[in-house]
Amino acid sequence: MPGAPTIDAARVIADLRELARRTGDDAGAQRLAWTEAWREARRFLGELLAEVGLEPERDAAGNLWTTLPGAAPDAPALVVGSHLDSVPDGGWLDGALGVMTGVGALRAWAVSDSPPPRPLCLVDWADEEGARFGRSLLGSSAFSGTLDTAEVAALRDRDGVTLAEALADNGVNLERSPEAGARAASLGGYLELHIEQGPVLEAEGLPVAAVRGCAGVERKRLRFAGQAAHAGTTPMSARNDAGLAAAETALTVERVAVERGGVGTTGGLVLEPGIATAVPGRAELLVDLRHPDAAELEAMLGEVRVAAGDRSSQRDCSVDEERIWRIEPIPFDPALVELAAEAAAAAGGRTDPLTSGALHDAAEVARVLPAAMMFCPSRAGLSHTVQEDTAEADLATAIDAYGELVGRALLRAG
Amino acid sequence: MPGAPTIDAARVIADLRELARRTGDDAGAQRLAWTEAWREARRFLGELLAEVGLEPERDAAGNLWTTLPGAAPDAPALVVGSHLDSVPDGGWLDGALGVMTGVGALRAWAVSDSPPPRPLCLVDWADEEGARFGRSLLGSSAFSGTLDTAEVAALRDRDGVTLAEALADNGVNLERSPEAGARAASLGGYLELHIEQGPVLEAEGLPVAAVRGCAGVERKRLRFAGQAAHAGTTPMSARNDAGLAAAETALTVERVAVERGGVGTTGGLVLEPGIATAVPGRAELLVDLRHPDAAELEAMLGEVRVAAGDRSSQRDCSVDEERIWRIEPIPFDPALVELAAEAAAAAGGRTDPLTSGALHDAAEVARVLPAAMMFCPSRAGLSHTVQEDTAEADLATAIDAYGELVGRALLRAG
Repeated sequence: MPGAPTIDAARVIADLRELARRTGDDAGAQRLAWTEAWREARRFLGELLAEVGLEPERDAAGNLWTTLPGAAPDAPALVVGSHLDSVPDGGWLDGALGVMTGVGALRAWAVSDSPPPRPLCLVDWADEEGARFGRSLLGSSAFSGTLDTAEVAALRDRDGVTLAEALADNGVNLERSPEAGARAASLGGYLELHIEQGPVLEAEGLPVAAVRGCAGVERKRLRFAGQAAHAGTTPMSARNDAGLAAAETALTVERVAVERGGVGTTGGLVLEPGIATAVPGRAELLVDLRHPDAAELEAMLGEVRVAAGDRSSQRDCSVDEERIWRIEPIPFDPALVELAAEAAAAAGGRTDPLTSGALHDAAEVARVLPAAMMFCPSRAGLSHTVQEDTAEADLATAIDAYGELVGRALLRAG
Repeated sequence: MPGAPTIDAARVIADLRELARRTGDDAGAQRLAWTEAWREARRFLGELLAEVGLEPERDAAGNLWTTLPGAAPDAPALVVGSHLDSVPDGGWLDGALGVMTGVGALRAWAVSDSPPPRPLCLVDWADEEGARFGRSLLGSSAFSGTLDTAEVAALRDRDGVTLAEALADNGVNLERSPEAGARAASLGGYLELHIEQGPVLEAEGLPVAAVRGCAGVERKRLRFAGQAAHAGTTPMSARNDAGLAAAETALTVERVAVERGGVGTTGGLVLEPGIATAVPGRAELLVDLRHPDAAELEAMLGEVRVAAGDRSSQRDCSVDEERIWRIEPIPFDPALVELAAEAAAAAGGRTDPLTSGALHDAAEVARVLPAAMMFCPSRAGLSHTVQEDTAEADLATAIDAYGELVGRALLRAG
């Protein structure tokens, strides 16, 4: 594209390594939101922006915004970014890649001969991980209008500090955080580069892909009740084994996910009394179903429910269901996804967009702005661990492709 | 049978109720071995025996023996009895039924016109339950010669008291407890009445059954190892789900038990990391297999091993096995079992003997003496709980049938 400057990928990777050095240790990244290491990460971000004469400002939710003015100063801005916060003992790339690549985009345009056609904005979302208080996507949901501040105010960390207190210590008034949403009126689109956190791109040997949206999630706790009984004296025909009803349901979750093209996981199964000499009288199964299509997700849940009921009644057990969490599938903006897919394909990446099975700030942003994402590979699909990594060549390719995408998106009408 | 006196079943039941009143509370029986409530139970036993001029003596393992001399004083004695100790919050009949019925047998003969043809001995085995230190059948295994005193000396209760210390506080020197076995030379047989602790007799509507032996047990911990992974980002085809390999194996345990006519239980299943958002990377399955026939038990274990290996390798998981416990099947004495079956059938009970899926002191005794058991029903199959119960009419029928059996066995050559 004539005039669109190239992001210096080597510099972005060097910035990421310096960030890891400043805010991590041998166990991994330690940028837990609202802590000193996270504030240190943002100070480093401020230093990088100061190099090109830019200064970030914080919104009411604690998100950090930096704007490079455009040739059309009042045109809707294009937003790039992700999140600097990490889980404890996290990886060096999760979130940080998108922020540092965004810095690279601002740097490229700031030192180029001409300003971007419209304003280019970097955002560092606050507390994407929810690792300390259990509420993910905090800053981006305040921005999108889905944060119920009363509901989260009393969430406590393991030391008993409330979310509201932790935010206040960082100069953020939780009650006023939804005011961050006002900014959306001046924005025209959002693009986020992130690691895949899954094994697909690595398995395909591809360096980058567009993402078409985030899968919907149905997360349930299924409670099976039968009759605890002596393992030695109770004939097989006289048992009401809640554990086996749960085991059969777990296998059904797998089958349904495969047949419907989603994912289904039974990550937890607790048996009671849980000893070798007793037939389980109770079993609790954690079920997590995901699918990019809302109707398919509902069908998956329906089939799992039927199976859980059938398997239970065959064993004279009962089953009930507790909803832990749900979110509907969130599709990204088709035009931006198409631009991203073109940029990915041009860089030798995937021609078809992926669906994200994990949630990202982009899912919240997509509620109020046209949004899309790009993924680069994760070694062995690992994330949220010090082992999280991506080959430098793949990082460089993905950063280049993202820079291309940003350039094309800036030229579109906002 | 001419001359064999009848046990006063109503008195036995009254004694059981008084024992429950003295040594239990609203939560159930509290006759934990080596504690004050257990000693109180034995004091009550001593009072009952004193009524008919008998006095118990303790052997080197803490078992309590009471002998009513026979017409042939040096003939091998017939032993009746069971155990007074209970689990915490236990039932009123488990063990106590056999001891109090044994008292009834001694009482019947003691007040009759003639002595029993050969000595009649009551035994109250020490610490059958193993509820405090985890070693079941302590007194009877000291008697049978299978107790490794060095192995159990350091077992501790939850307060840190060792088994050796608890026994010493009760006047028992653990190291010398195997000396209890010397008594076997003067004994000719052992008969124990016990509650079934299972649902079979209740389901059949029968009041009593002979028992042909105790099933063998193979108890294993199977450890499945796969790869923990993100529940949202890991496609179904890229998973190594250790939890599902364990779930399939649990269902195989059930199938194998049904097909082989044994019982098989997966009472414990622990998943790691055990959260909704992670595919389980590890799973530990507790497997308990029981069968009265050693070859069938071995075949069950073999089939479970093959299934665990196959299911694991299909998922690119591995599995290894830890032996928790095993005991071979212990058949009772065929002639005594036949006598017991005749007595049970004559009382309107089961014509075919049952196999016990639980262990009893009789299993240890059977290693050194001809032994057999009788079972009466357990309401809802329950035991080791305050809900443990048997209809009084069934208790009376079983006590009568046991008295018949004792009378017939006394007339046999010892």
